[in-house]
Amino acid sequence: MSQIASRLEELGIVLPAPVAPIANYVPYARIGRMLVISGQLPLGSDGKIAPAHIGKLGPHSPIDGAREAARLCAINLLAQASAALGDLDSITQVVRLGGFFNVASDFDSLPQAMNGASDLMAALFGERGRHARTTVGVAHLPLNALAEVEAMFEVA
Amino acid sequence: MSQIASRLEELGIVLPAPVAPIANYVPYARIGRMLVISGQLPLGSDGKIAPAHIGKLGPHSPIDGAREAARLCAINLLAQASAALGDLDSITQVVRLGGFFNVASDFDSLPQAMNGASDLMAALFGERGRHARTTVGVAHLPLNALAEVEAMFEVA
Amino acid sequence: MSQIASRLEELGIVLPAPVAPIANYVPYARIGRMLVISGQLPLGSDGKIAPAHIGKLGPHSPIDGAREAARLCAINLLAQASAALGDLDSITQVVRLGGFFNVASDFDSLPQAMNGASDLMAALFGERGRHARTTVGVAHLPLNALAEVEAMFEVA
Repeated sequence: MSQIASRLEELGIVLPAPVAPIANYVPYARIGRMLVISGQLPLGSDGKIAPAHIGKLGPHSPIDGAREAARLCAINLLAQASAALGDLDSITQVVRLGGFFNVASDFDSLPQAMNGASDLMAALFGERGRHARTTVGVAHLPLNALAEVEAMFEVA
Repeated sequence: MSQIASRLEELGIVLPAPVAPIANYVPYARIGRMLVISGQLPLGSDGKIAPAHIGKLGPHSPIDGAREAARLCAINLLAQASAALGDLDSITQVVRLGGFFNVASDFDSLPQAMNGASDLMAALFGERGRHARTTVGVAHLPLNALAEVEAMFEVA
Repeated sequence: MSQIASRLEELGIVLPAPVAPIANYVPYARIGRMLVISGQLPLGSDGKIAPAHIGKLGPHSPIDGAREAARLCAINLLAQASAALGDLDSITQVVRLGGFFNVASDFDSLPQAMNGASDLMAALFGERGRHARTTVGVAHLPLNALAEVEAMFEVA
């Protein structure tokens, strides 16, 4: 079993079947050693978004729901990378994550929420998982999802 | 006539003169085989935004206007790429599109609207047009445009 | 003294200590000749955001505050690049800036505000500072900052 597959198992994470794009584009594209993954939504292993991960964040929204949504986006990013590469061990660096959260007004815990995605990359890839990132609150997201995360990986 | 130029003609698309940036930056930059194009607005062939492509999307906004705005952004991206490269045939892959829509509250058809850009790339470039993408709704855009799209191309 | 360091001095700019990420990620990552810098906030040289650079932009917000916020984001990007590279002279091209402004409703001067970042790159790097960029208004930003700017540099 590959190294990252072992860590996924230790973390109790089963990668879902990669989600088909909900419109006319593809989940990933490569340029040289860079693998670019399309923005992923917090779909669960059943391919649906749980009600807890739909809607807009406000000043009193719990951080946990937003953090879990970001983590699910990251799991879907990994599912796409796995489909692209066959083996996540060929990822030599998580280069960048872009996190978009669906915000109605203020939600002051955007960085903490985005850690749901970043922490997973660090847990799985160690030093290779240390990435640059940009986190913003946006006015709306596809399917009214709570979060969307895109990624750029360096591959061997 | 180049292959892509022929397809543009078949589709009845005339690339406009590339639009000068509305502020202190340039329309594109290259790094290795990657061509990065600045976010483009839905300017028409007269260099102006039609009233139908200005303003914010809401729950009842028609999809067609947003889709057409995205398509115009894509045409302006191609005009910039053409100015950068001389010939769109040197594009070996459309790597990524980033789509931003101007949303007042909810607009549930963001992916369908973004297809206005993606469909054009697919129609022009075929397999080479299959790109990763990220689509979000934002709180405002320059000139209060309905849409803005940026691109990353791989070039020969 | 290096060329860019001299220009910084001429402009009266002292790069601050690079800001530690406010969550679990790193300030930059490299892939080949590309240096990707995480989104930076308009922190001052004391590591804090001035009250003038916090909050949301509206139709009557002064451009100057937003422009100065973008300029501070750019200074923090340069501080991170300097920490990554040791010497800003190894930057061969500013490839792309991504600008996000915290907008409550309309703020029609997004491009002029973003020039606070772009003008600084042009002043420092000359031809090498001519970059692609994307500017959008978003619904919220970490720390309720007025602006956040991310960057992609080509390095020798």
